[in-house]
Amino acid sequence: MKRKQLVIGLFGFGNVGQGLCDVLRRVNPDNVRIARACVRNTKKHRDAPVPITDKADDIFNDPEINLIVELIDDADAAYVIVERALRQGIPVVSGNKKMLAYHIMDLIELQRLTGTALLYDASACGSIPVIRNLEEYYDNDLLISVKGILNGSSNFILSKIFNEGMDYSEALSIAQRLGFAESNPTLDVDGWDSLFKLVIITIHAFGVYVRPEEIFTFGIGRMTADDIRFANEKRRRIKLVGCAEKLGDDKLALTVMPQLISKQKYIYSVEDEFNGIVIKGMFYYKQFMFGRGAGGHPTGSSVLSDITAQTYDYRYEYKKLNSGHTPTYTTDFIFRIYYRYTTEGERHLLTFENINESYKSATYNYIVGDICLSELIRNADTLRRAEVFVAAYPAD
Amino acid sequence: MKRKQLVIGLFGFGNVGQGLCDVLRRVNPDNVRIARACVRNTKKHRDAPVPITDKADDIFNDPEINLIVELIDDADAAYVIVERALRQGIPVVSGNKKMLAYHIMDLIELQRLTGTALLYDASACGSIPVIRNLEEYYDNDLLISVKGILNGSSNFILSKIFNEGMDYSEALSIAQRLGFAESNPTLDVDGWDSLFKLVIITIHAFGVYVRPEEIFTFGIGRMTADDIRFANEKRRRIKLVGCAEKLGDDKLALTVMPQLISKQKYIYSVEDEFNGIVIKGMFYYKQFMFGRGAGGHPTGSSVLSDITAQTYDYRYEYKKLNSGHTPTYTTDFIFRIYYRYTTEGERHLLTFENINESYKSATYNYIVGDICLSELIRNADTLRRAEVFVAAYPAD
Repeated sequence: MKRKQLVIGLFGFGNVGQGLCDVLRRVNPDNVRIARACVRNTKKHRDAPVPITDKADDIFNDPEINLIVELIDDADAAYVIVERALRQGIPVVSGNKKMLAYHIMDLIELQRLTGTALLYDASACGSIPVIRNLEEYYDNDLLISVKGILNGSSNFILSKIFNEGMDYSEALSIAQRLGFAESNPTLDVDGWDSLFKLVIITIHAFGVYVRPEEIFTFGIGRMTADDIRFANEKRRRIKLVGCAEKLGDDKLALTVMPQLISKQKYIYSVEDEFNGIVIKGMFYYKQFMFGRGAGGHPTGSSVLSDITAQTYDYRYEYKKLNSGHTPTYTTDFIFRIYYRYTTEGERHLLTFENINESYKSATYNYIVGDICLSELIRNADTLRRAEVFVAAYPAD
Repeated sequence: MKRKQLVIGLFGFGNVGQGLCDVLRRVNPDNVRIARACVRNTKKHRDAPVPITDKADDIFNDPEINLIVELIDDADAAYVIVERALRQGIPVVSGNKKMLAYHIMDLIELQRLTGTALLYDASACGSIPVIRNLEEYYDNDLLISVKGILNGSSNFILSKIFNEGMDYSEALSIAQRLGFAESNPTLDVDGWDSLFKLVIITIHAFGVYVRPEEIFTFGIGRMTADDIRFANEKRRRIKLVGCAEKLGDDKLALTVMPQLISKQKYIYSVEDEFNGIVIKGMFYYKQFMFGRGAGGHPTGSSVLSDITAQTYDYRYEYKKLNSGHTPTYTTDFIFRIYYRYTTEGERHLLTFENINESYKSATYNYIVGDICLSELIRNADTLRRAEVFVAAYPAD
């Protein structure tokens, strides 16, 4: 097979861009070369191993460049780059999950119109090849659910809490010191990063696109010592889980929220900064994929896999999206939650279908009960602002 | 994308053939249909949901049939079928690992000559999409090792022993009663099934073919209560592991043998009839894939994934085999083993490079020492016939 020679224009030279350069230097493929990197501040990258520019045109006007690799943080700027590249007929590899979560449908259409490929396996779960597996391997009709720990930073914090008995703020500051969490950790601990990944995964798993703001998203930032004790007493751990789950043959529910996970579940044992995904099928029961979900080298390595795929003109075919029989997103889904609250006002914020446990004391009140997902979505903004904690409480 | 209509000629209607029919009935794809099944004994399959024949020509001469699915036990007969199909230009899906382990190089050449595809993801690790992942995703130069529990039957037996304190024969008979082991369990417990899978995996992981008889293969059939106690005392479990491991940049060592696995390793927790594969890469550390490795429905589901891939003319490209820079198989590899023996003759059968522990008593003798793989291969036949047990003893 004849492989294409790739000359790359790289946007962004942060952690992942540097990781990609390290991986490329070691692998040293004879058909892949970075021609130039475009960064915001050229002074910061004086020692970069490739020519540096701060003008996008230097890349877009270089006739040699036949692949754009976009690894910048800013989702809006990333969209501008990716759209321009596709319109110019230059294939793109992107790792920008937020940009993809909001613009994926436009970008799928643009790929179709221009016949130009956009690959983004690196955007979800770093080194775990989850998107390409869902796209290529798991047949739509057999898939029942895809659930996983999609964010390494929050999982690192939760591991410290449940394995080493730390409290939340102590665990967070260690995660920040070790580089597993940003100084502003909102994106990770409040579930947004997991949400963006779930949106992308759901396209490839079930052929369904749901806008991020339509999905109930709740993080671990409000978790207190009471919640941790509750989990420990029930012999469970709190994990931040992104979940896409078929209900019957034609409905699909999506959530990003803490879950009280019992020991029997695979994701119970996903520790530290790792990611793990459980794919449940009708006939093969469960599969579990596990690996490093973040970091410059694992993600750089995943970006290189997308680059390599471009040497033989691989494209996502969006088979499930195009299959014509996809489930419909529903919020009419009743499931059990643990709800910890402080005031009576908060108590009556949520209408439960059924209350299984109700506990009150001077300092700590909770309800375990069944609630409709639409009820949580209706109150999502209020819940996120209040001194409450919500976690799914699945059966053992 | 336009999908091809597939009309299948099925060879074999055992456990997996039946599983495939069940999966197809449930999924009900509108572009896949089994036209006819060819079996040895038509009387046995009177109630099959498809027309039955005992003449291969009924399939090969049916002009409607454009895919052969081969799911028979007999490796020689399977080869005849697969070769004939490819020569006739009919693509094939096969699950016959023994046939593939011996004939894969001929069949790769035949695919090239005829331009006709042969897919066999179902042949290794049932429902885990390991072959296609190695082929499509993991870039050759980054892979360091692929290790795994490749046989569900022997793992089921080992789980019963180490979790429930059963002895070997008790665990074997339960495995047989539950259908996880054959009445003649040699293929599973002596490592041959794992060996065939390892040969196939190694082609796709490293682009290297090694004939099965050149690979050191030792099973769990000779394991005694002493070996089990030794493992427990060292806080390890014995697992039957297939292993392909790069040594430096250009050498590759392969083994199929019991390993004393410590708790920190992912495969320590692979229980019962499950399979688990750890893929180690230079930059992403480790990935772990886990799932049902056997059984009619999981394997039938994997066969269906290969069938679905044929609807869009997917082919393995053998990228690593064709890459021109593959490592060389070596047996010049020193590693630590546990060697339990009975007689002095057995003691001196093996020449160790270095002996770390040596224990003798009236009934139980062992050595823990470093040995060259070539020394084990030289004595493999004798070891398999003697009252000894050999297990790799990797560092923690």
